[in-house]
Amino acid sequence: MGSKYPPSLRVCLPWWALALEAAFILVFFFYTSYDTSSKNQKTLMETYRGFQDVTVMAALGMSFLASSLRRYSWSGVAFSLFLLVLGVQWALLVDGFLENVSTGKVVITLLRYRDLATMSAVSVLISLGAILGKANLLQLLVMVPLEVTAFSTMRMVNRRFLNIDDHSNMMHIYVFSAYFGLTVAYCLSRGLPSGIQEKDRTATSPSLFAMLGTLFLWTFWPSFNCALLNDPNERKNAVFNTYYALAVSTVTATSVSAWAHPQGKINMTHIHNAVLAGGVAVGASCHLISSPWLAMVLGFVAGLISSAGAECLPVCFNQVLGVHDTCGVYYTFSLPGLLGGITYIVLLTLQISWTKNSMTGYQVLYSEALRMAVASNALCLVFSLVSGFLTGLFLNLKIWKRPHITKYFDDQAFWKFPHLAVGF
Amino acid sequence: MGSKYPPSLRVCLPWWALALEAAFILVFFFYTSYDTSSKNQKTLMETYRGFQDVTVMAALGMSFLASSLRRYSWSGVAFSLFLLVLGVQWALLVDGFLENVSTGKVVITLLRYRDLATMSAVSVLISLGAILGKANLLQLLVMVPLEVTAFSTMRMVNRRFLNIDDHSNMMHIYVFSAYFGLTVAYCLSRGLPSGIQEKDRTATSPSLFAMLGTLFLWTFWPSFNCALLNDPNERKNAVFNTYYALAVSTVTATSVSAWAHPQGKINMTHIHNAVLAGGVAVGASCHLISSPWLAMVLGFVAGLISSAGAECLPVCFNQVLGVHDTCGVYYTFSLPGLLGGITYIVLLTLQISWTKNSMTGYQVLYSEALRMAVASNALCLVFSLVSGFLTGLFLNLKIWKRPHITKYFDDQAFWKFPHLAVGF
Amino acid sequence: MGSKYPPSLRVCLPWWALALEAAFILVFFFYTSYDTSSKNQKTLMETYRGFQDVTVMAALGMSFLASSLRRYSWSGVAFSLFLLVLGVQWALLVDGFLENVSTGKVVITLLRYRDLATMSAVSVLISLGAILGKANLLQLLVMVPLEVTAFSTMRMVNRRFLNIDDHSNMMHIYVFSAYFGLTVAYCLSRGLPSGIQEKDRTATSPSLFAMLGTLFLWTFWPSFNCALLNDPNERKNAVFNTYYALAVSTVTATSVSAWAHPQGKINMTHIHNAVLAGGVAVGASCHLISSPWLAMVLGFVAGLISSAGAECLPVCFNQVLGVHDTCGVYYTFSLPGLLGGITYIVLLTLQISWTKNSMTGYQVLYSEALRMAVASNALCLVFSLVSGFLTGLFLNLKIWKRPHITKYFDDQAFWKFPHLAVGF
Repeated sequence: MGSKYPPSLRVCLPWWALALEAAFILVFFFYTSYDTSSKNQKTLMETYRGFQDVTVMAALGMSFLASSLRRYSWSGVAFSLFLLVLGVQWALLVDGFLENVSTGKVVITLLRYRDLATMSAVSVLISLGAILGKANLLQLLVMVPLEVTAFSTMRMVNRRFLNIDDHSNMMHIYVFSAYFGLTVAYCLSRGLPSGIQEKDRTATSPSLFAMLGTLFLWTFWPSFNCALLNDPNERKNAVFNTYYALAVSTVTATSVSAWAHPQGKINMTHIHNAVLAGGVAVGASCHLISSPWLAMVLGFVAGLISSAGAECLPVCFNQVLGVHDTCGVYYTFSLPGLLGGITYIVLLTLQISWTKNSMTGYQVLYSEALRMAVASNALCLVFSLVSGFLTGLFLNLKIWKRPHITKYFDDQAFWKFPHLAVGF
Repeated sequence: MGSKYPPSLRVCLPWWALALEAAFILVFFFYTSYDTSSKNQKTLMETYRGFQDVTVMAALGMSFLASSLRRYSWSGVAFSLFLLVLGVQWALLVDGFLENVSTGKVVITLLRYRDLATMSAVSVLISLGAILGKANLLQLLVMVPLEVTAFSTMRMVNRRFLNIDDHSNMMHIYVFSAYFGLTVAYCLSRGLPSGIQEKDRTATSPSLFAMLGTLFLWTFWPSFNCALLNDPNERKNAVFNTYYALAVSTVTATSVSAWAHPQGKINMTHIHNAVLAGGVAVGASCHLISSPWLAMVLGFVAGLISSAGAECLPVCFNQVLGVHDTCGVYYTFSLPGLLGGITYIVLLTLQISWTKNSMTGYQVLYSEALRMAVASNALCLVFSLVSGFLTGLFLNLKIWKRPHITKYFDDQAFWKFPHLAVGF
Repeated sequence: MGSKYPPSLRVCLPWWALALEAAFILVFFFYTSYDTSSKNQKTLMETYRGFQDVTVMAALGMSFLASSLRRYSWSGVAFSLFLLVLGVQWALLVDGFLENVSTGKVVITLLRYRDLATMSAVSVLISLGAILGKANLLQLLVMVPLEVTAFSTMRMVNRRFLNIDDHSNMMHIYVFSAYFGLTVAYCLSRGLPSGIQEKDRTATSPSLFAMLGTLFLWTFWPSFNCALLNDPNERKNAVFNTYYALAVSTVTATSVSAWAHPQGKINMTHIHNAVLAGGVAVGASCHLISSPWLAMVLGFVAGLISSAGAECLPVCFNQVLGVHDTCGVYYTFSLPGLLGGITYIVLLTLQISWTKNSMTGYQVLYSEALRMAVASNALCLVFSLVSGFLTGLFLNLKIWKRPHITKYFDDQAFWKFPHLAVGF
């Protein structure tokens, strides 16, 4: 068992993590306090419920979704939790500072930031899917503040200059995180040797754990999509539309996966991801859609492109672009996310043409909203690609001592096993 | 790996599924709209919580409960989700049409139908337990609309002609689904060769996944039993009684399972199912029982007959009746469900005798309710047997190309495995 | 497969369990009734939500946390559930009797006792961690009433004579259960032969199931710590502080675990437990802490001592004290629990010194509270050690026919396996 494992993790990781944590505590000490405004218990406990759902998605759903690799399931679960908690703390601070940048003293009202912070931290977990197994924990640790800062800055720009509300802003998370993760994966990419490909597979038990993650996400996705909406009617629409879109994308993804295989066999890896495409696609416009069929059509198209992408894209990505997308982030989040953005813009355009002959005031309003939506989507793409590229270059530095290619997708490099790795 | 697998799935399934989904979208387009009546947010979000619990039970609980077979755990989980989402959409439409059959235009108010639809779809998942591993996905796909329609029609008849309320009506789900599933399994049954029996077994990891499903169901069962009750006091009773019945049936089932084995060893498969018997038995009368001991006695008896059934019935069923009940639906749902129906009738009879010397009005009322309850239970049995038999005959047609008997309980027929099946 | 297994379980367990259950039903019949006071539905359903979270933690979290042993995962999960339901019923009765001991007739208002009873039963599950795999189910069955009674008596004494409120009282659960379990483990301890040590290990899948339990506990711990608080502001503080403490202890535990290994490899077993240390440590004072940084410092220290303890203590415990602590109860619950008790006392002392120059009334009040807190912590320690010792001696009697040492940590002694034990 002579270790080829570089000593980076041993030397650096604990100190970096503990130093970062100590810094967090100091900053929290000086700059934060709990919101003591007089909210009554009802509101608090209701907020708590919604927040709990988002935490369940992040901690249980995303963690287990990342456990699908045969020899990398421990890392998938435990690293996700590690990055989540760091991301939440960082997001809380960054969001607070960006919000209160004008005033001298920064007071972070925590009640509101809970949802925002947890959801921002989820962006790291989405990006993680693209580089899972190809970076060490220290690289991931460094990625957390970089990605969360980029995401928060983008949302701040959107809010300040494009007047985008919290919900629409947050729904950029899918596209942003996916392209960020893919760009980082591109920068980190090397040709994978043929032997290593076998590790990038799933097996029966890890697949069921990943299915558990998928089902957690599937069940609680409506809570995620409605978390930042305040209007009761919009919340209701968001919950129902997300549910319908998810239902239809489940059927579509399963069917297309069976259809694509010459013997009609379904690919479990596609199911894990494509099933969720509906929830991603409907995100941006879930509060606007007012009849179930539209959400269902969205879910149908999302399931279709997601499954089709899962079938065709990996080959193309690996060989042409040289990007290795471990957990299929591209077809799970990017494509449906883009579809969602386009749908939102189309819906606004339709509303403009419908109001053409009626009140001019509304039309101006909608045209303005349309311009802003287009701009914010473009901004999101640019931000994610640029920040992802810079982060990727930074993570490629030798000082991080990235794992050797033979250690890719292997828990043994990071975990103390009872004897040796015991099968799977 | 020369495939003995018939091409039915490849040729038909995706087209059928996609066509069905397209049909759903069309019907939703023409006939449904969201309920826009002015419910305030409090009510909505509370409904959402209750609905979320039911979804957790259906998606996480029932799916993982079906993952117990050693070589069939992927199918168990993923097919359950697939059938669930189809069932929900179909149930939503069928319930809406049956409710509004008199008016010309059908408007489906969705808020109320959410619980009903998800719960109706659960009936398919219960029946699935009896035929799991012995039918292909296309047959299951065809079973969904047939079973949901039969179940909804039965409830409509009960509501219209027997004046049964929503809760009592829904609580027929256990008996209905179990007998439906068993009858279908009877129609599909062939003698299983001895080699195949080994696949119809569990192993360590699949068993823990099934236990996960059991625990999800166990934890959220009170929400299922109280979902359709409106009176706060009845809700409270339902929650508490379900909880007590489940607690006692857990103790009883474990004890009886140890007692039945010559060396006192407990059978994990019995635990998975018999633990839940209390929740089934208490369903029909959970809102009426006003002291915990009665619920506990019910749980005790339910655990007893369920464990005893699990010990004795499979042999009898397999050899005498020729029914192969994969997941033990008979002793999990049928027997405790019948016990629940009988308890409900006994409780009504007792209330009649108690009110004998008091006001005559109440007595007449109770006598009427008793007659209706007896009739609706009988109707439920007849409906389930007849519709199950017809469905079973229909599914037995050659056009569905049911899997060859050597492919029973085998994921490989349906799933693309990384290499081959990797152990378990 | 000649059985070395003693016939105790077969002969005694089912009868004992069924007799106990029958006794429960009788006592419930004579002494209990549902609370029929006019609470409105809102309150009930909100209580139900909080209760549901605690049940999820107990049934899903604690059960799966106990599934980490390679050959003992079935027993870990199923025995936990068995003990939980017995514990809840017993706790309900004991709490009721101790509360209403003065009046002649005992009326148990159930609404309030739900949380108390489930949380008391959790104490058994915590203690179970120390003796898991080394006692048969009959011994565990006997331990339930003994431990729950001791815990309830301690809380009654605290409430009566030391005027401690429900929340602070319940937060003794961590220290009490851990020392109780460890003392029982000490009484049951024998030198483990070297071969058996290998069974006391984890493997990939069981480890992921344990991680699932950890994540359930991690996600719902805020609900546990705030369950018995009534003031909205205290609830809010409890939720937030628990969340921050857990986040920081996650980072710390992971880092320290990597730091302690010569090659920087993380120990999964430490992660399972040390991650939760923050929630334990913050328990006693979570409603008092008014800024996040303090909770974070607590989480930091808790993660530190918990991980350090996980690294160093097992060797010391095994060889010096002769205590074998299967699931690391000592470093998961004892040490952070003690830290929490000390923090509570320090916080009160600080408040005394801060109010020194202000109103005297407050100072007297705080001094009184401080005295009571010190006394109740001491009482908790003494109670747990004494009752644990007596219980341990009692469980050591020959009549219980404890498993032979070669059967430690082995599911085969208790479970009927399909063929034989199938790998893991």
